[in-house]
Amino acid sequence: MVARAARLTRVQHFYQEEFTVARVIVDVMLKPEILDPQGQAIARALPRLGFTSVTDVRQGKRFELEVPGPATEATLAEARKIAETLLANTVIEDFTLHLEQDA
Amino acid sequence: MVARAARLTRVQHFYQEEFTVARVIVDVMLKPEILDPQGQAIARALPRLGFTSVTDVRQGKRFELEVPGPATEATLAEARKIAETLLANTVIEDFTLHLEQDA
Repeated sequence: MVARAARLTRVQHFYQEEFTVARVIVDVMLKPEILDPQGQAIARALPRLGFTSVTDVRQGKRFELEVPGPATEATLAEARKIAETLLANTVIEDFTLHLEQDA
Repeated sequence: MVARAARLTRVQHFYQEEFTVARVIVDVMLKPEILDPQGQAIARALPRLGFTSVTDVRQGKRFELEVPGPATEATLAEARKIAETLLANTVIEDFTLHLEQDA
């Protein structure tokens, strides 16, 4: 019984290590001072379609980066580097990172 | 003093009513079973560029809908309708709504 319990714990541990998936969400939006024609097109179309409560629309991108295992500081640092160099054009875009931890 | 306090309260009230802006965030992502070539292209490029911790990337869209005044149930219902009919193609995409309340 003790051996079985130990094996179970080992299996659980293995599962936790191997099958936990962290998801780093990177939201990329145009900086507020940059014109957003896509968003403006949507905002202008809304009243014509009967939607009157929205005054402004901005459109951006959302990336989900899947990282095996629980997220560490190093993972987040790498995700930030990826966002900075590849996903966002930091001249005209701002980005934010946040973590979505799966069970 | 009492009159002044009353006026101040009225002014604060006016500000709260007129200048509160709620932002409804709509995240649109391809359904998990739909192929995402953009995300795959990024995922394949990452190891070549020295980023080894990310195993999968999905790319989607993020919309910020600005709504004057504090968000009500009606606003959220309208935003959901907009997301459903205009921002997401619900055949191939899922969307989630959440609220970002500004001061």
